[in-house]
Amino acid sequence: MDDGITLEELQLAARNHGLPLESVREAITPVGLHYLLIHFDIPVVDAGSWRLQVGGLVDRPLELTLDDLRARPARTLPVTLECAGNGRVLMPPRALSQPWLTEAVGTAEWTGTPLAPILEEAGLGDDALEVVFTGIDRGIQGGVEHDYERSLTLDDALRDEVLLAYAMNGEPLPVQHGFPLRVIVPGWYGMTHVKWLRAITVVSEPFTGWQQAEAYRLHRSEDDPGEPVTRMLPRSLFAPPGLPDFFDRSRSLAAGRCLLEGRAWSGFGPIVRVEVSADGGATWADAELADEQPEFAWRGWTFTWDATPGEHELQCRATDAAGNGQPETAEWNTGGYCNNAPQRARIVVS
Amino acid sequence: MDDGITLEELQLAARNHGLPLESVREAITPVGLHYLLIHFDIPVVDAGSWRLQVGGLVDRPLELTLDDLRARPARTLPVTLECAGNGRVLMPPRALSQPWLTEAVGTAEWTGTPLAPILEEAGLGDDALEVVFTGIDRGIQGGVEHDYERSLTLDDALRDEVLLAYAMNGEPLPVQHGFPLRVIVPGWYGMTHVKWLRAITVVSEPFTGWQQAEAYRLHRSEDDPGEPVTRMLPRSLFAPPGLPDFFDRSRSLAAGRCLLEGRAWSGFGPIVRVEVSADGGATWADAELADEQPEFAWRGWTFTWDATPGEHELQCRATDAAGNGQPETAEWNTGGYCNNAPQRARIVVS
Repeated sequence: MDDGITLEELQLAARNHGLPLESVREAITPVGLHYLLIHFDIPVVDAGSWRLQVGGLVDRPLELTLDDLRARPARTLPVTLECAGNGRVLMPPRALSQPWLTEAVGTAEWTGTPLAPILEEAGLGDDALEVVFTGIDRGIQGGVEHDYERSLTLDDALRDEVLLAYAMNGEPLPVQHGFPLRVIVPGWYGMTHVKWLRAITVVSEPFTGWQQAEAYRLHRSEDDPGEPVTRMLPRSLFAPPGLPDFFDRSRSLAAGRCLLEGRAWSGFGPIVRVEVSADGGATWADAELADEQPEFAWRGWTFTWDATPGEHELQCRATDAAGNGQPETAEWNTGGYCNNAPQRARIVVS
Repeated sequence: MDDGITLEELQLAARNHGLPLESVREAITPVGLHYLLIHFDIPVVDAGSWRLQVGGLVDRPLELTLDDLRARPARTLPVTLECAGNGRVLMPPRALSQPWLTEAVGTAEWTGTPLAPILEEAGLGDDALEVVFTGIDRGIQGGVEHDYERSLTLDDALRDEVLLAYAMNGEPLPVQHGFPLRVIVPGWYGMTHVKWLRAITVVSEPFTGWQQAEAYRLHRSEDDPGEPVTRMLPRSLFAPPGLPDFFDRSRSLAAGRCLLEGRAWSGFGPIVRVEVSADGGATWADAELADEQPEFAWRGWTFTWDATPGEHELQCRATDAAGNGQPETAEWNTGGYCNNAPQRARIVVS
């Protein structure tokens, strides 16, 4: 962090929240502990009068009620979601936005109906190129008033695992997670999973809404058009061991064998390796991976650390099956996106 | 706010979180939106092996299971809880702790069994003076390692409305709100409502644990022993009207009649008056109060504001039946407690 956090950033940090790191021990995050990033206000939606409009370049526009969606084939998937701005504060000079450290993540069991059959039922027009998802939430960002909207290419939108989700961990979506409906796009950063969904529109041109064309791009400078942010880069987290200090969150631990517990994920494939360093990144040793990993959720791992007296900096880093890892320092960009440098925790052993 | 927020404060703001102000429209706060302040780590508790110990100066010490507690007479109360540090950042020079603005509040329906009959069953000794509540959570604060513990005088502990709560909004306590059991002391600031309760101990001397003797006191200077923080001072909040700006949370509103919605509460009695100012506190007008107020929860209010073009600062302030109000500036103290100065929101009307 380069400078003190501003009032504007603090206001965002007070509204939104991350996963308490000790909760990374849970494979499925309890609802109130899942990270939360709300661009505007949480809308109040009457489920009875709410409708999902499926339109644009389709042969048969659809208007669906929540009951219509619930009557369709249902699928439940555990999915890890991470904010694209996770790690922003640790990437100086800092982009002014939601001031995440490392904890903007969570894993829930999302239940919904697959999107592809709905688009097929509506009948895609020949010129269909992208699918735009429109939320009910509306506000001003970057000086532009707009509904929260994001698009996917047709190929991405038609993937089997893309869901229109109406339940989280077996309960109706909480208001803050998009009640009554959100899209779930497993493997992608959080901005993609549009909450409070009201419309799905098939279009023939690349979508240029503010959240697509201005935000969530990796600009190396003000003039750089940059590449869009898409899938989650590999990242791993561990529950800091020992007892916490209330104020600085440092940890105190008795010397001896200590079992570290963590989780790792990537939007580019399964996690194949997790390593731990107890000496500030000078040397690394392999963690033990859980036998199984759900296709779109994080993988558990453990590491037995022989904690010796003194002050230590623990770190962890993950590698996915596509060969992506976690760099010591992530490449800087104006929005502070995709900072997947390793988590660090200071531990005093006595 | 006098200076930029530090990394240590930001770490706390990322873990803990406030009520998004638009959610003040809800009489009962959804679980994940209720404010949350966790001193140490969220403990993992196995409900099957968990026991509540009732001991100290009692004739018949008790060991109660969760089923034992659920089998006792149950009572459900809507209760407003507010962190004693709410408003801390707005009280310069700022105490370094959880950096709350104005949103550290929430109202839930707590279900549990009254404490007094349990103490009577255990049989209070003649020298009984206070009741100490001990949580499972343990850590270091102010350089002192301790379990989270707070006490009440016998008179306060024996009040009818003090509950041992095992449910919140009709569901088992979420882990972050104290699963499997917490104490609910209606009317008091949040530090009193000990979470993850494991022991209730009757003692004959004033309790001097860190969270009682060092924290949660109104020290005017380092040497001032100060008075303890107890019941919630009156406070009111409103949902800022219009559309939000993502980053600075300022609001844009079309000119005309605008219905402001808010809530007000006090630990010293019912709310009897709420006033609104649209000119930065120069003039005030009465809001309309909801007909009823639950005994221990906030009271709804509305105010029809004739919004004229220009920039306005909205404020609100409440008065309780005991005559306590909200001062323009609350009295400073080293811990940043009890800052119940009015909420302010900047609105641009066009």
